[in-house]
Order: sequence, then C-alpha cells, then structure tokens
Amino acid sequence: MNAGEQKEKLLIVGSVAFDSVETPAGNVEMALGGSASYASIAASYWCRPLAVGVVGEDFEEKHFKPFADHGVDTVGVEKVAGKTFHWRGRYHDDYKGRDTLETALNVFESFDPEIPEEYRQARYVFLGNIDPGLQMRVLDQTTAAELVAMDTMNLWIDIARAGLEDVLKRVDLLFINDEEVIQLSGRSSILGAAEKVLSMGPKYLVVKRGEYGALLFGPDTCLFVPAVLLDRVVDPTGAGDSFAGGFMGRIAGSGSLERSTLASALIDGAVIASFCVEAFSVDGICGLADARFAARRSQLERMIRL
Amino acid sequence: MNAGEQKEKLLIVGSVAFDSVETPAGNVEMALGGSASYASIAASYWCRPLAVGVVGEDFEEKHFKPFADHGVDTVGVEKVAGKTFHWRGRYHDDYKGRDTLETALNVFESFDPEIPEEYRQARYVFLGNIDPGLQMRVLDQTTAAELVAMDTMNLWIDIARAGLEDVLKRVDLLFINDEEVIQLSGRSSILGAAEKVLSMGPKYLVVKRGEYGALLFGPDTCLFVPAVLLDRVVDPTGAGDSFAGGFMGRIAGSGSLERSTLASALIDGAVIASFCVEAFSVDGICGLADARFAARRSQLERMIRL
Repeated sequence: MNAGEQKEKLLIVGSVAFDSVETPAGNVEMALGGSASYASIAASYWCRPLAVGVVGEDFEEKHFKPFADHGVDTVGVEKVAGKTFHWRGRYHDDYKGRDTLETALNVFESFDPEIPEEYRQARYVFLGNIDPGLQMRVLDQTTAAELVAMDTMNLWIDIARAGLEDVLKRVDLLFINDEEVIQLSGRSSILGAAEKVLSMGPKYLVVKRGEYGALLFGPDTCLFVPAVLLDRVVDPTGAGDSFAGGFMGRIAGSGSLERSTLASALIDGAVIASFCVEAFSVDGICGLADARFAARRSQLERMIRL
Repeated sequence: MNAGEQKEKLLIVGSVAFDSVETPAGNVEMALGGSASYASIAASYWCRPLAVGVVGEDFEEKHFKPFADHGVDTVGVEKVAGKTFHWRGRYHDDYKGRDTLETALNVFESFDPEIPEEYRQARYVFLGNIDPGLQMRVLDQTTAAELVAMDTMNLWIDIARAGLEDVLKRVDLLFINDEEVIQLSGRSSILGAAEKVLSMGPKYLVVKRGEYGALLFGPDTCLFVPAVLLDRVVDPTGAGDSFAGGFMGRIAGSGSLERSTLASALIDGAVIASFCVEAFSVDGICGLADARFAARRSQLERMIRL
C-alpha cells in the first residue's frame, strides 16, 4: 500500500446509506453502507478518494469518522433536509441470495450530484452503482478524466437501458456481476458477453463472480483472480463495491494500465473484498494493517502460482 | 503430453455406460459414457490407463474403439449377460442443473470388480464414482499402489456413509464437488470442509467447482485453477471424470507429488475437462492434437499469471 503524502485523487460517486442487515451470522441496524462508502474506504489504501453523495440530517458527525480516518475527502457528500437512504435486507442461509425487505430512498431520491470545483480535475473517476442519468451528469462535470470506470446493476438494465448504453460509450471500464453481464449482453456465455460489452464502449470489463472471484477482459487480455477462501463470512454486503474501490484505488495509485498493474489491482480488489465480508458494515475494511493485508495477499498469490 | 512407449500404468475403476442426454445444445441417444470411460480416455494422454468395469451384450466392438484408439487397456472391462448401464438426463437451460430421467443399472447392479492379474501391480489407482464397497474390493486386490485417488457423490454420502468413511481412510486423494464436500464434512465453508475431510484420511483433497474451476488442498498447500472460459458448452456430462482422469494421468505420468506436478495436473485436468464439455459423449476428449491442447493450456496459464 502506498503511504505517500501526495496520493493520486480518485473521484467516487455513489450511495451513502444506512443498512439494516440480517445474515446467518447476526444482524446490524442502521449501519454505514452504500457503494460510495465501501468503495472510497477501500480505495483509500492506495489513493485519495474524493467522495460524492448525499445524506440526510440523521447522518451525524460520527458517521463521517470512517471516511475521515481513511483520508477520504467528503466535501462532496452533501447533507440535505430529510433522512439518509436506508436499505434493509436479509441473506439466505447459504449466503447465495438475499431478500430486500425495505428500500427507503429518502434524500437519495432527489440526488443531483454537484461536483465540487476541486474534484473536477480528478484524473481517475469511479461511477458507483447509481442511475445512469446521474452517472452521466457526474461525467459531464469532470474536466480531466483519464480513466473512468462505472458499476451498474440489473435494475438499470431493466428500467434505464438507453441511459446506461449512453454512459457505457463514455467509460473505459465496466464493473458488473456475472448474471448482469449475461442480461446486459443478451449472450449466454461469459466470453460471448464480454465480447459484446466491449463492443458497446468500455475498453475493459471486470466481471465479478462473488465467492468465485473475478475476470478482467481487455485488449488481448483475459485475467482471472479467485476470491480469498474464508473460514467464516459475516456479511457479503459491499463486497463488490469494496472490490471495485480497491481495484480503482490501486490503478489510480499506480498510474498505469499495464498488464501487471491490472493484475495487481485484481488481487488487491479480491483481498479488500475478503476483509469486507468478514464483518458487518464497513468494519472489515477499516483500519487494515499493512502486514495483515500483505499476508492475505500473498496467500492468494500462492494459490494461483501454478 | 508424454508420447513415450513405456507409459506408467494407472488403474481406473468406474462405470461404463450408455448415456442419453438432452442439453440446450442438442441431444444424443445411447452414447458412450460412464466415469471409467471419461477418466481413462482423459488419462491416456499422459499414461497407460487400465480400465475396470462391466458392460452388457449390447456393448459392441465399435464401442471399445475409443478405448483402443487411446491405448486404454480394457482387459478389465468384463462383458456379461444383460444390458449395459444406461443413464438418461436432461440439463436445464442454464446448464447449472440437470434432471435424471432414467437410471437403468442393468449389468452394473451386480458389478463385482475382478482385477486382472496384470493390473494388480499398478502404482497409481483411481477409484471412480461407484459404491464405496466396490471401491474397497478393488483396493483389496491391488498389491503395489503408491497413490490411490477416489471420487464419490452425494448418493454414497447419503446411503453408504460408513463404507465411504472406510475407503477414505485408505486413499491418498479425494475428488469431490463443492456441494458434496460441504455435505460430507458438515461444515459450512470450503476451507472448514477441507480441514475436516483431510482429517478423515486423504492427504489431498480436490474440490471440483464446475465452471468455476477447482481447488486442491494438501499439506501446506492450497492451489486453485479456474475453468477454461468457453464460448459454447454442449454437454457437461463427464467433465468431472475427465478432470480427475487428466489430473491422475498427469500425476502417474510425472511420477511425483511435488507442488509443481500437482499444479500441472490441475491445469491439465481443467483443460481436458474443457474439451469434454464442448461435445456430447467422449467425442470432445478423443483424438486431441498436442498443439490444440497446448494452445488452450497456455491460454489458461496466462489468465492466472498475475
């Protein structure tokens, strides 16, 4: 991890939420969540994240602490009248599925991201999983983006496909999970889906496969990283956002898109995601000691050193 | 692939069957199948397989041809009065599940493997997925086994657990899929399951995860190989048996259990399994040219060279 003073900046837009989650391992009420929270804290180990989001009046100083502790700039997290986005969900016994019990968009419903002046020149941009229209509005406010990545989900493929396709044309990298890439592409295999998606705009595609790892497709490139094997999962929420944040943080920190950097970014993403799922909320990815991270990283590397 | 004249021998016991299979890609009637068929043809690229099984009077000379073409010794495939084992199944649209429509054990019902004298001194043994009692009877007839591997399935965990545990105590390596290792161990994570199974006898455990690859656990060893990404799957039947056959063939051909050999065996297993699923029956693993195999092998290696 890069401990330099002048870290490269990574603009991250997404949700900041309170999550109430029940898993076979326990439950948590109104804990910090949201794609921007997970991604920015994860990215903070390699770069300086500039977070953009919206919260309500119930989002107190203490809720900003995990961001501050990790050097995440939250000038772009606007506080407005109303309540913070709240999601309530319950994971199935095998962790392979989950039910959404309640989604209260609250202040997120009228979120119209205004990028602070000092954020606009960020060279690296991560558009977390939000409405494609909002992702586009963020993009329109950036002035010096060199690498733009986005995440998305089945909801936007279903209800905002045209907008999603417009954003896809303007991004360099798409993060998406395996079911969604099949849905988005209309192809039946991951390989076919990758080919199709790479013809829709992005130069790179990262397919997230949960406990089975992740694949990266790019020009003449196909890389795979397995997930870290864990004894015990507590809460899978945020794993994908942590993966993307770690990946993008590493890319921003390294400043290149060479094969070796992409490979390192995949490993770092997988490692940070593994810490994420070992605890509720952002607890697993907060305050990670270098040695702990490095030990797990080399364990993962050994697994695929065939 | 080793093209030497004096290949190491690998004793393989399992089913020899006629499969009638329907998949989203098409269907086939009464085609050669069974764990011994897939495993021995797959293994033939690295060693000399000695097949043990039973067939009925409907198993004609032409059905032995794929074995003969690949140098598989079928002296141990007994032909008896009655019909050959027949399985009929249909795969779901996404290939992730299948329904068994018919299982006619036929001559397999009274299978009592008699190991030919010239097979008994094989140093490498693979007990395909059959009744643990039969696996034990095979083991009892071997005289010089140095490495014994076995496969099993949920059926035997359900109805023959004690016998299965007895065999487990006498084998060096267990092949099993991810759901079954959870069932066998009673643990909820793959890591926990591996720890448990390795305490039950085998020194090595290979967990097959289908399209997501395979894991190998052993003393101070945890290795992972992804599955080859394929544009089109035709029939997943026999993939696990081909994987195990390829893995064991490579181990027998190399004559060691060093980390590098285990790693190569995992890759070869994954590659041969990928050819298996591209066609019905054993067609995909028959007559593979060295160059075709090598190209796919290096594609897989590049994917994980992070």
